[in-house]
Amino acid sequence: MKLATLKNGTRDGALAVVSKDLSRAVTVPGIAATLQAALDDWWDAEPQLKAVYKHLNAGEMADAIAFAPHAAASPLPRAYHWVDGSAYLVHVELVRKARGAEVPESFYSDPLVYQGGSDDFLGPMDPIPLPAADMGLDLEAEVAVITNDVPLGTAPEDAAKHIKLVMLVNDVTLRNLIPAELAKGFGFYVGKPSTAFSPVAVTPDELGDAWDGGKLSLPLLSFVNGAQLGRPNAGQDLTFDFRQLIGHVTKTRKLGAGTIIGSGTVANRNHAEVGSSCLAEKRTIETLANGKPTTPFLTYGDTVRIEMRDAQGASIFGAIDQKVVRLSDA
Amino acid sequence: MKLATLKNGTRDGALAVVSKDLSRAVTVPGIAATLQAALDDWWDAEPQLKAVYKHLNAGEMADAIAFAPHAAASPLPRAYHWVDGSAYLVHVELVRKARGAEVPESFYSDPLVYQGGSDDFLGPMDPIPLPAADMGLDLEAEVAVITNDVPLGTAPEDAAKHIKLVMLVNDVTLRNLIPAELAKGFGFYVGKPSTAFSPVAVTPDELGDAWDGGKLSLPLLSFVNGAQLGRPNAGQDLTFDFRQLIGHVTKTRKLGAGTIIGSGTVANRNHAEVGSSCLAEKRTIETLANGKPTTPFLTYGDTVRIEMRDAQGASIFGAIDQKVVRLSDA
Repeated sequence: MKLATLKNGTRDGALAVVSKDLSRAVTVPGIAATLQAALDDWWDAEPQLKAVYKHLNAGEMADAIAFAPHAAASPLPRAYHWVDGSAYLVHVELVRKARGAEVPESFYSDPLVYQGGSDDFLGPMDPIPLPAADMGLDLEAEVAVITNDVPLGTAPEDAAKHIKLVMLVNDVTLRNLIPAELAKGFGFYVGKPSTAFSPVAVTPDELGDAWDGGKLSLPLLSFVNGAQLGRPNAGQDLTFDFRQLIGHVTKTRKLGAGTIIGSGTVANRNHAEVGSSCLAEKRTIETLANGKPTTPFLTYGDTVRIEMRDAQGASIFGAIDQKVVRLSDA
Repeated sequence: MKLATLKNGTRDGALAVVSKDLSRAVTVPGIAATLQAALDDWWDAEPQLKAVYKHLNAGEMADAIAFAPHAAASPLPRAYHWVDGSAYLVHVELVRKARGAEVPESFYSDPLVYQGGSDDFLGPMDPIPLPAADMGLDLEAEVAVITNDVPLGTAPEDAAKHIKLVMLVNDVTLRNLIPAELAKGFGFYVGKPSTAFSPVAVTPDELGDAWDGGKLSLPLLSFVNGAQLGRPNAGQDLTFDFRQLIGHVTKTRKLGAGTIIGSGTVANRNHAEVGSSCLAEKRTIETLANGKPTTPFLTYGDTVRIEMRDAQGASIFGAIDQKVVRLSDA
C-alpha cells in the first residue's frame, strides 16, 4: 500500500491512498482524515486503507484524482518524533579519515542518533529556504521508517513488526554551522533545518524481497542539478538496521505512534563506483585524493533529487525534487 | 487564564479551563477538543477560552467539576517540538569547576539547547518509570513556555508576543547514561527519558509583574522525598531569557504552534542560600566542599515535587508530584 498527504490548507493535510504506479490518488476521510490519525489507530485503519488500495489499483475508485507530487506534503507534515541515526559507519570512517581521526570502538555497538525538528517538514517538491549563502547547504539522502507505538525496552528481534511504513528522506544540513554547534557538546539543532520526505510512504509488503524486516536492499539514487551524485545500495555496508536502531531508541523511552526513524546518510564502501549520498562525503573523497574539495555546497537555484526504483525500474516512493531558494522566496 | 488537559483515554486528552485557584475545571469541546487544536487556531480560541475562564472564576459555569491534578495529563500530552535550553550558566560554571574545566566564551553568546522527546510526556502526577536502578535518575526543575507559530529569523525583541503559555517542567535525566552519550558527540537521547510538566499552563497575564515578557521572577520550589532541594529565583542569574532562546532556535527554522521551549535547570549564584534544582548540582557542591558527593540519585520509591507560588503563597501551576517506580509498575 502507498500513502500520501495532499496539501489542503490545513496543518496536517488530507490522507490519500496512492496507486502502485503513483498515477492516481484518493482521499479517505471516512477512514482517517490524516496519516497521524490513521497511525493512532493503525490496527483499525490499515485493513480499510488496504481495501481502498486494492480497488484503486483495479481502477474501481470513481473519485480518484491524478496524483501530483507537487501537491503533496510530507507524508506526515508534522510528527511527534523524528530521530535520525547514522547507521552507515563507512561514511563516518571516511570523514574521520580525512581529518586523521579514528572511529571510536563504541560506535560499532552503540548507534549514533540525533533528534530532528518535526514540527515543520518540507513537502517533497517544496523549495529549501537557505537563510544565508555561506551556511554550506547539503543534502543527505536516507531511508526512514514510521512506527506504531513501540514499548520501552523493545529488543531488536521484536522490532520489525512495529515498522508500518517506509519512505525516503532529504535530511537537509547546514555544514558550516555544524562544527561550532557540535563543539558545544549538545548535538545538532541550528545545523539541521526542516527535513523533506518522499511523496509517498509505503507499507513494507510493497518492497518484496528488497525488505528483510530491517533494511531496504535497493540503490538510493541522488542527483544534484540533474547529475547523479550517488547510487549506493541502502542494504549494504550498514552497521545497524532499523531493528537495531529501534532497540537503541527504546532503551529508556517508548515511541509514540507516528515516530519517524532515519537511517542516516546511505553510503557504501565502494564509493568510487557508486558515489555518495551527500556532498560532504564527496568533498571528503576529493580532499583525500587532492588535498582539497572541489565540489561546492548548494546555493540558490541548485536542485536536489532523491529517488529509489524497483527491479523493473519503477519509482517506488516518487521523487524528492527540491530547489534551493532565498528565504524571501520560500 | 489557566489551562489543563484531562485524561480521557485518548492520546491528546480533553482541553479544560481551570479556575485561578485551581479548584474547578471545565472542558470546552465547543471551542477546542485539545490544547494542540486551540494552539493551532489560537487567535480564534484564546478569546473564547478567556470568556470561559472569567465565568468559571465567577462561579458561573454549572458544568464545572473539581480539578484533580492526578487526573491531568501534561498540558500537551504529546507535542511536535520540545527544545530545552541551558540558560542558567551559573549551573554549568559550577559543574565545570568541579572537574577543573572552563566554560567556553561562546556559551555566553550562543545558547546551549537540545531537542527532547515529545511524543510521550508524563502527566504531573504520573510515576517516573526507571528502567534500571543504576541509571542515576535525577530531576531538573525548570520553567517552560509554549509558543504559537514563530517565523524563521525572529529577533529576540520580536519574540515575546509568540509566548502564549507558561508552565513548569521536570526534565527527567539519567545522569549515568550522559557521559558516554555526550562523548559520542550527537547530544542527548537515551539520557533524557519522558519529561513531565505542571498540571496547568497559564497565559503570561496570570503572572503579573513576575513576568517581563521573557522571564519569570519567582522562586522555583523543588523537593525530594518531602525535603526542600531548592528555591532559586527563575528570574535571577539567567544568561538567556525566553526571548533570546527563541531568537536562537529560529535562526535556521520556524517553530510550529505548540512548540515547548524550556529554560534549563534553574540555578542561582547564591546556591548556599537557595539550594539547587537538580541533584547533580547538589552533588557537585558536595564534591567541591568534601571531595565526594553524599546525596544519592533517585531510586524506586523516591518522590519529586516541583511547584511555584505567587506573592500571596498560592500555587500558580499546581505541583509536579511524582514517584519513581520500577518499569514493571509503571
